Amino acid sequence: MPHLLSRRRFLFIGGVAASSAIASRDSWVSAGQQPASAGPVDPALIEDLVAANRILAREQIVDAFGHVSVRHPRGPDRFLIARSVAPELVTAADIIEHDLEGTPIDARGRASYRERFIHSEIYRARSDVMSIVHCHTASLIPFGVTRVPLRPVYHQGAFVASGVPVFEIRDAGGMTDMLVSDGKLGRALAVTLGNKPVALMRGHGAVIVGDSIPTAVGRSVFLDINARAQAQALALGGKITYLDPEEARKYLAPNNYDRAWELWKKQVSR
Amino acid sequence: MPHLLSRRRFLFIGGVAASSAIASRDSWVSAGQQPASAGPVDPALIEDLVAANRILAREQIVDAFGHVSVRHPRGPDRFLIARSVAPELVTAADIIEHDLEGTPIDARGRASYRERFIHSEIYRARSDVMSIVHCHTASLIPFGVTRVPLRPVYHQGAFVASGVPVFEIRDAGGMTDMLVSDGKLGRALAVTLGNKPVALMRGHGAVIVGDSIPTAVGRSVFLDINARAQAQALALGGKITYLDPEEARKYLAPNNYDRAWELWKKQVSR
Amino acid sequence: MPHLLSRRRFLFIGGVAASSAIASRDSWVSAGQQPASAGPVDPALIEDLVAANRILAREQIVDAFGHVSVRHPRGPDRFLIARSVAPELVTAADIIEHDLEGTPIDARGRASYRERFIHSEIYRARSDVMSIVHCHTASLIPFGVTRVPLRPVYHQGAFVASGVPVFEIRDAGGMTDMLVSDGKLGRALAVTLGNKPVALMRGHGAVIVGDSIPTAVGRSVFLDINARAQAQALALGGKITYLDPEEARKYLAPNNYDRAWELWKKQVSR
Amino acid sequence: MPHLLSRRRFLFIGGVAASSAIASRDSWVSAGQQPASAGPVDPALIEDLVAANRILAREQIVDAFGHVSVRHPRGPDRFLIARSVAPELVTAADIIEHDLEGTPIDARGRASYRERFIHSEIYRARSDVMSIVHCHTASLIPFGVTRVPLRPVYHQGAFVASGVPVFEIRDAGGMTDMLVSDGKLGRALAVTLGNKPVALMRGHGAVIVGDSIPTAVGRSVFLDINARAQAQALALGGKITYLDPEEARKYLAPNNYDRAWELWKKQVSR
Repeated sequence: MPHLLSRRRFLFIGGVAASSAIASRDSWVSAGQQPASAGPVDPALIEDLVAANRILAREQIVDAFGHVSVRHPRGPDRFLIARSVAPELVTAADIIEHDLEGTPIDARGRASYRERFIHSEIYRARSDVMSIVHCHTASLIPFGVTRVPLRPVYHQGAFVASGVPVFEIRDAGGMTDMLVSDGKLGRALAVTLGNKPVALMRGHGAVIVGDSIPTAVGRSVFLDINARAQAQALALGGKITYLDPEEARKYLAPNNYDRAWELWKKQVSR
Repeated sequence: MPHLLSRRRFLFIGGVAASSAIASRDSWVSAGQQPASAGPVDPALIEDLVAANRILAREQIVDAFGHVSVRHPRGPDRFLIARSVAPELVTAADIIEHDLEGTPIDARGRASYRERFIHSEIYRARSDVMSIVHCHTASLIPFGVTRVPLRPVYHQGAFVASGVPVFEIRDAGGMTDMLVSDGKLGRALAVTLGNKPVALMRGHGAVIVGDSIPTAVGRSVFLDINARAQAQALALGGKITYLDPEEARKYLAPNNYDRAWELWKKQVSR
Repeated sequence: MPHLLSRRRFLFIGGVAASSAIASRDSWVSAGQQPASAGPVDPALIEDLVAANRILAREQIVDAFGHVSVRHPRGPDRFLIARSVAPELVTAADIIEHDLEGTPIDARGRASYRERFIHSEIYRARSDVMSIVHCHTASLIPFGVTRVPLRPVYHQGAFVASGVPVFEIRDAGGMTDMLVSDGKLGRALAVTLGNKPVALMRGHGAVIVGDSIPTAVGRSVFLDINARAQAQALALGGKITYLDPEEARKYLAPNNYDRAWELWKKQVSR
Repeated sequence: MPHLLSRRRFLFIGGVAASSAIASRDSWVSAGQQPASAGPVDPALIEDLVAANRILAREQIVDAFGHVSVRHPRGPDRFLIARSVAPELVTAADIIEHDLEGTPIDARGRASYRERFIHSEIYRARSDVMSIVHCHTASLIPFGVTRVPLRPVYHQGAFVASGVPVFEIRDAGGMTDMLVSDGKLGRALAVTLGNKPVALMRGHGAVIVGDSIPTAVGRSVFLDINARAQAQALALGGKITYLDPEEARKYLAPNNYDRAWELWKKQVSR
């Protein structure tokens, strides 16, 4: 389990010297190409990001692959994400700040995820998004490759009532290695996502966004349940009554995942 | 694991002062709008209610959401249910007495579940019901949205042989947020439930009732198994022989879940 | 975990006095209706029977219900089975000897399973059977209620190549409570089983027999896997090539489950 | 958990005397029929082979049956595989060197897997293969018995884009016991496999090969996920867009499983 950082002190991502803690963000222009840090982050946020990694692994939304990020709270053109490591293994020491070009700040030899451009380009396109999950959850793959629309069969799936676009990487890049491994592909994915909370990625997985870490994680967990329940409902063969868009809109509220987040954090800190 | 309360002493729900233990129920008229408590409850019942929460989580009938209640044994117009918290985390200190208006007795700042009206109105309508489970179990959602009837494929599902009504919240409230968040919606749900042990809630989940905590919990567990087995039987494509209503009636007996309850309580106290 | 009995000493089932250990079986005629014991049993066999209970629970073949028995090695008209308790909780102290009328020997207040007649009548009818499992495994229910034949899709299911009869309790007892709760129903089930290793029970579950505890348990585990794989194969929609009866016959060999039994016993003794 | 061997010292498989460590391979001609060892192996490789066994068990690719081997790094006509034991129980002391006739080197009473010829004949036919998994994973059985082609629904399944042949043992051996228990059947399986990474075995399971232990294990894990997602996609009923062969080819890269291998090894060493 991760070392639980005290909520009472600040910490620099990547071990930047403590004296820098009071430097303004703009003073972080380094020599050469090194982008500047947006500054230190509340350890509680890092703790939540580490927990998010472990929660997604425990809930089987991610396996050895997949990742979750959070936008830097004081630097909208920066985001925090683990080095290239399995989510279940992430600790605070693995978190690296990146800019919206996908360039790591002070990587100190730690490798970045190849698909960090999923995050950088969505943060660039969507100022409302504060956290992003990318996953290959098995229940979602079928909806991405068949284009049978993923729709809300229960209130916990309400957030997909406005539709789930499917990203066809061939449209953006022709025959690729399927990975969103540069800014151009990331931008195309962000265009497909539009203003929606979820996009499926054909032959690959999904991206889920939210206005906080608990929202992005919560949506990922309940999207998986909704997908499995919808597949079973389709198999039963009757006419399905999906949530009405108005029902979905009324259900959606801030902090819908507070109760779940409290549970999940406790589960991964045991 | 919960602190296991001694079965040899009584305890007030919510930490009411010990001197009140001998006060009659009617003397609990408080100043202003505070409803009176129906009095102290045997700690063994609280222990069972806490165990029920943890059992339902362990059996994956509930996730971070869902709840279970018990009617107050000496006050038929009162019921006990946890504060708004994930079932897996419930301890005795979380249990709050409520009246049939859904008003908490001595909440002391603890939030109540928004959907407590599921419980209050069913207790009001059904004097035979002593315990109620509300859940969003994924196996049940498909039967609620397709109206393919949930029927007993084996003896453990016998209790649904009389039929499983489906609550359409639109009939009661038009376009809602899907939640049974007031007495009017709770009453409509109770009408749909009628004298049955289970009602599905379209696009939401289910409510399961019983004459004791073990019965409500046991029915919840075996309803899930029955739903999955029925869905698989339908997928096989042959003609299904469901339990005959007479077979079901003969199978049903008090204390059907004694053996399971003993196991489940041990599992959650490890 | 169960107290692991020493394989080097003998023990009486149910705590019979040690001096009886040298009494011949025939000398066990008790006063009144008490049937005689067939004598003490090697503790290693009791240990295996306890392990079988826990293995079946761990492998999710049984839940809070279901049971497993072994024929008394020196008394072919006696069998050993737990008192009425969930399999996961069984210890050596719970094992009770029964005769083929289903009457317990020296029950000392311990309740017997209502469906012990499944065991007594199959032991009576099948001298080759040394161990019996009764279960309600969810994967088996659909094949019992649809009469889609359960057939071997892989070598581990070879033992069902000769066919799986389905017991229709209505044929034997009309409208019952579904339970094999007397000798007449047990005999009807034994007739349906015939010389086969498995019979499904419509709307109820299955019975699986073998020439040893590991064989009955192993068949139960792999029957579940075969059922799930067959259901999935049927869903794929192609023509299924089942094991040929000759392939199945050639595959079957004594001690097929030795490697599994070693693993399973270690898993439940951790 | 296995004793974690130091990576800094060498060890002889099966406890061969330390003085032999400097003997050349050719000097290992023993009296009589005993084949020569290819010499000592880096303990880190044995550690990985033990981990592979436990990982495959933990990921439910194998159950009590199934096996994984590695080619001897200095003796291409030798491979290392556990004695006949359940994968979850394998320790370094269980690893036995075999030659390509399937003959164990220095077995010292330890039994070999009956189906070791799967390994010996594929190593003989495929010089590129360094590690082999044989399993009976339930998700794969349906594709072997229906001949519905297993195809890549997501990038992690890219390695099957070139097709998955199905081994029909009847073509090679007529009515057999289904087991690849001699060199002739092993050679027929190797012919069916051809230059592919996977072959299904009708009514039996699968064989998965790779250029390293992590590759063979990783492919086994993701083949299972791909099979389940493909089955669900087929059930949804829409037209499936599989990975294009060019996409698959571009995705495939050496060391695709590094991140997973790090996680999996930690999980089985806890």
